[in-house]
Amino acid sequence: MIDPQRYPRLSRIQVPADLRQFPEEELSAIADELRAYLIEQVALVGGHFGAGLGVIELTVALHWLYETPVDRLVWDVGHQTYPHKILTGRRDIIHTVKQADGVAPFPKREESEYDTFGVGHSSTSISAALGMAIALQQLGDDRKVVAVIGDGAMTAGMAFEALNHGGGMDPEPNLLVILNDNQMSISENVGGLTQMLGRLTGSRTLNAIREGGKRLLGDKNKPAAKFVKRWEEHWKGMFVPSTLFEEMGFHYTGPIDGHDLPALLSALKTLKGLKGPQLLHIITTKGKGYELAEGDQIGYHAVGPFDPEKGLISKPGAKKPTYTDVFGDWLCDMAAAEPRLQGITPAMREGSGLVRFSREYPQRYFDVAIAEQHAVTLAAGMACEGAKPVVAIYSTFLQRGYDQLVHDVAIQNLDVLFAIDRGGVVGPDGATHGGNLDLSYLRCVPNMVVMAPADENECRQMLSTGYHYEGPAAVRYPRGTGPGVAVLPTLGTLPIGRAEVRRDGSKLALLAFGAVTAAAEAVGAELGLTVVNMRFVKPLDRALVLELARSHAGFVTIEDNVVAGGAGSGVAELLAAEGITLPILHLGLPDAFQHHASREQLLAEAGLDVAGIRASVLKRWPELGRPNVAVSAAG
Amino acid sequence: MIDPQRYPRLSRIQVPADLRQFPEEELSAIADELRAYLIEQVALVGGHFGAGLGVIELTVALHWLYETPVDRLVWDVGHQTYPHKILTGRRDIIHTVKQADGVAPFPKREESEYDTFGVGHSSTSISAALGMAIALQQLGDDRKVVAVIGDGAMTAGMAFEALNHGGGMDPEPNLLVILNDNQMSISENVGGLTQMLGRLTGSRTLNAIREGGKRLLGDKNKPAAKFVKRWEEHWKGMFVPSTLFEEMGFHYTGPIDGHDLPALLSALKTLKGLKGPQLLHIITTKGKGYELAEGDQIGYHAVGPFDPEKGLISKPGAKKPTYTDVFGDWLCDMAAAEPRLQGITPAMREGSGLVRFSREYPQRYFDVAIAEQHAVTLAAGMACEGAKPVVAIYSTFLQRGYDQLVHDVAIQNLDVLFAIDRGGVVGPDGATHGGNLDLSYLRCVPNMVVMAPADENECRQMLSTGYHYEGPAAVRYPRGTGPGVAVLPTLGTLPIGRAEVRRDGSKLALLAFGAVTAAAEAVGAELGLTVVNMRFVKPLDRALVLELARSHAGFVTIEDNVVAGGAGSGVAELLAAEGITLPILHLGLPDAFQHHASREQLLAEAGLDVAGIRASVLKRWPELGRPNVAVSAAG
Repeated sequence: MIDPQRYPRLSRIQVPADLRQFPEEELSAIADELRAYLIEQVALVGGHFGAGLGVIELTVALHWLYETPVDRLVWDVGHQTYPHKILTGRRDIIHTVKQADGVAPFPKREESEYDTFGVGHSSTSISAALGMAIALQQLGDDRKVVAVIGDGAMTAGMAFEALNHGGGMDPEPNLLVILNDNQMSISENVGGLTQMLGRLTGSRTLNAIREGGKRLLGDKNKPAAKFVKRWEEHWKGMFVPSTLFEEMGFHYTGPIDGHDLPALLSALKTLKGLKGPQLLHIITTKGKGYELAEGDQIGYHAVGPFDPEKGLISKPGAKKPTYTDVFGDWLCDMAAAEPRLQGITPAMREGSGLVRFSREYPQRYFDVAIAEQHAVTLAAGMACEGAKPVVAIYSTFLQRGYDQLVHDVAIQNLDVLFAIDRGGVVGPDGATHGGNLDLSYLRCVPNMVVMAPADENECRQMLSTGYHYEGPAAVRYPRGTGPGVAVLPTLGTLPIGRAEVRRDGSKLALLAFGAVTAAAEAVGAELGLTVVNMRFVKPLDRALVLELARSHAGFVTIEDNVVAGGAGSGVAELLAAEGITLPILHLGLPDAFQHHASREQLLAEAGLDVAGIRASVLKRWPELGRPNVAVSAAG
Repeated sequence: MIDPQRYPRLSRIQVPADLRQFPEEELSAIADELRAYLIEQVALVGGHFGAGLGVIELTVALHWLYETPVDRLVWDVGHQTYPHKILTGRRDIIHTVKQADGVAPFPKREESEYDTFGVGHSSTSISAALGMAIALQQLGDDRKVVAVIGDGAMTAGMAFEALNHGGGMDPEPNLLVILNDNQMSISENVGGLTQMLGRLTGSRTLNAIREGGKRLLGDKNKPAAKFVKRWEEHWKGMFVPSTLFEEMGFHYTGPIDGHDLPALLSALKTLKGLKGPQLLHIITTKGKGYELAEGDQIGYHAVGPFDPEKGLISKPGAKKPTYTDVFGDWLCDMAAAEPRLQGITPAMREGSGLVRFSREYPQRYFDVAIAEQHAVTLAAGMACEGAKPVVAIYSTFLQRGYDQLVHDVAIQNLDVLFAIDRGGVVGPDGATHGGNLDLSYLRCVPNMVVMAPADENECRQMLSTGYHYEGPAAVRYPRGTGPGVAVLPTLGTLPIGRAEVRRDGSKLALLAFGAVTAAAEAVGAELGLTVVNMRFVKPLDRALVLELARSHAGFVTIEDNVVAGGAGSGVAELLAAEGITLPILHLGLPDAFQHHASREQLLAEAGLDVAGIRASVLKRWPELGRPNVAVSAAG
């Protein structure tokens, strides 16, 4: 429970209606308490940190001024919504964030009526808010709609698409977009837009001029005010590139200091009364109010538990490398050997393991901003001229580049390697971040080679294999660590479309794809079954599958992808195409979006741990539990 | 063969090297010949028309000035590349465009070294060209890279992503982007960007000022020239919103008249010598030089054969309605009954059958520009507030909104209906436009209901069904006409997940999905087999499938989607999950991208016409061809 001594005001706020009981003068004190409470709670259990600290004042201002949840508040990405969650009924459970049955790390409609739009991927907020504004206007409902989007998220194409649509509509939509400009996404932002915003916010002269102008204004219709306005627009044309937004059809206000609560409230009060598409540009600091986080904005984007007095302490000693580490090391090693290699990331340098590569090969490192579509087609263009691009991308974000993968890479059979991190079950970040679909949506694409490693060393081998394969290839590996197999420093390849028999057994063959191979092997050993590390989702090892079909009474396919259209379905298709009829059991992820929990919990729930696989196999073939009984071909 | 009398110059141009033999003075005459030849050839056989007429001068200028194919010319979308094809070795076969084994309707790498990047979808050119420019710069290769993109294509997010990346890079890429501004995509453009460009190009004052400035300029370093330049920039800030591009980091030149060949050449000559990211803004007229096409830019975007003297003649009499027509009528009828219905299209009003709806329900009609990502999330936002959005989209373009379908619609189980046109084999537009993958990439997504109609009336019923289903639903129908079943005016629904037995037979059950049902029925009747119109790809009619599995010796699944992960795979997964072992034959599209040809040809090639289905069934079960022989369960 919250301590009323330390939090005399916050302890009285369960929901925004309570907040709205406080007079405006106390809001700064409430913001201070909210900031302190956020630091205390996140330090306790970990979670997204810096983004929330950056929007403390904004969160307080919005919930105080707007009638949430009647008015609709749409947060982009959602990294920054812990303060929002604290003020909207989840103050006392915020410490359960990311845990199974705990608070979701992002807004989630099922969780709260204050979470108007579920999120996790970036740059959706303007589209969603515009949709809401249109629907409400058509109903004659005048509730307000506000979207809060970061400057990082603004680099994604869909944010531009939404601005373009919203700014050009007739009748005009009533919508406020707040651009929360902290010059950061998870890493520093890149690109022309960022540089433009930088020029804008650095333009102190302009701000001074504007402030002078405002003091003169008073009555908007006085000739002096008109002159100042015209004069201001003149200077804006000279100095303020953010006429970008005006040109798109949004009325622009800003920039203002997003930590200056009175200024923020003043601007928002004005904007609340205006019709049409509005854009408020605020400048904030990620990590604001916690010095260590301000000083290391990338490190404090998301944290584990820590001591607020001491900050993050890097753990000593060698830890087991993650698949991300394996990829990052491979990329540097291959780059050393291959001058044509190029590394591309859509704004995920840290998450995708490209930090070292970006330092060692800056000329071949391309952070393209939050721009998955562009990332993929950029790679296609590079491949046309003989470069060898490697697109490092999370499985869930590759969904954003799907058309480009099909239309620009696969149709042209171009030599692009996709290094797909966070394939399969992802865990604490919830359904929005799951990589549960990739084997299905990749396997149906002609020309693709799709691999899933069983362990760390094989991941490296597959990356080399995909790199040297002269066509589109994907290596899809899971979040976190693997079984701990030592990674050899070589850059050797694997034969395309060849599986590895891990265990010669009898009766059934367990055909495992990727991360579930170790568990399959344990079950196979226990029950005396054949176990195959399939390695290739596409092309399948046809010869081996047919041979095993002849010598076994049934197949069990195992994968950490949905069963629908997944790797196991590919095995069944192959058997069907050959006219082979064999009992087959497909184990994989359910046809449902998984809630947030640890990766291990979710794998166990899906029956993809040792116990689950064993249970499923014995349920279908109970005679395997009884020695010396033949397995029935009838399944 | 080209007539040397009528085309004294063009008849001597096989490839751009021939063009470059002509002096600059003759280029206008060559452009005239090229325009006349294009009109003659397209009138003969049909094809994309207006866009090509709009870039005649540009095409001549580029191939004359640049060393194609050494210099890299990347055309966006590709509708406009017939003149390019005529000048690059395909003059004498341009009349075969879109036909099987003929010239492809879009640039295609396999077809010509002058086609540097295959295309069909819009807005990829800047990304691809940037990738090429980067790769070439790294190789120390100074060949030029030029992308040509329309203002319509510029509304798509990925074009913005590419500008943002290219404009913010260090070192700067050497790249020329030509913005071909004709205020059109296939229909009129919409959105803030379009309005901005309109303001810009309407600014005659500015152009007058600029022209005055240019006359003064002379030596760039003279004080007068410097003054004029500064003065011009000042006015630019006041009047020229297209500082948008400057703000993104591109050096902007324009606007210039894209039909004024000397002006075009002059600008291009200057730009060719400049480093860094350049943007040249040209204004053109779609259909330029053919009066009827200028007057009806939408009608003449793509045409069938016509008499150049008379133009297009609308055919009299009732023609069989296409699936697109069925959708368009349904949408209007349902809108009349349902005030909450909203219709959304990403710039495909004509193609998706929304012309009448846009007229009758303008307040509920949303053309969001070429912005598939935004279209889908806009719908999600609308659904959150109780509106009932219908997203009308081509199958191939839905690939661009895939993440939004998963992340914004399906995870939140929102009530959005996807009316997916051009599902399955599309035909003459080639692989880039194929809808061959949608059943696979949709079926793996939890919460989705996926339907495929066997005929026109069922399409209407399914649209009503999906509309009233309170969650995400997709109706996927083919290009063109169906079997010709009369469409009833009712708005009745079908039970979710229930198939229709079309024919009670024995031995085998043919399980048909969508457009292939009529062919399946014919084969079933001939061979005495059971035929089921499955209707639902997801959820499957489980009870019926299990019942049929008990009463038949085998299944044949038939669909116009790739076999990999398709609807038939779903049937196999269901049997496997139930522990049922049954011979099954999956008929569907191949695991390869199809070339361009007529839809009928491609279906036949894939073995999905009556002859093909019959042959496949008899090959697997030859005994069916011999009366009174039992069908073997061994397949």
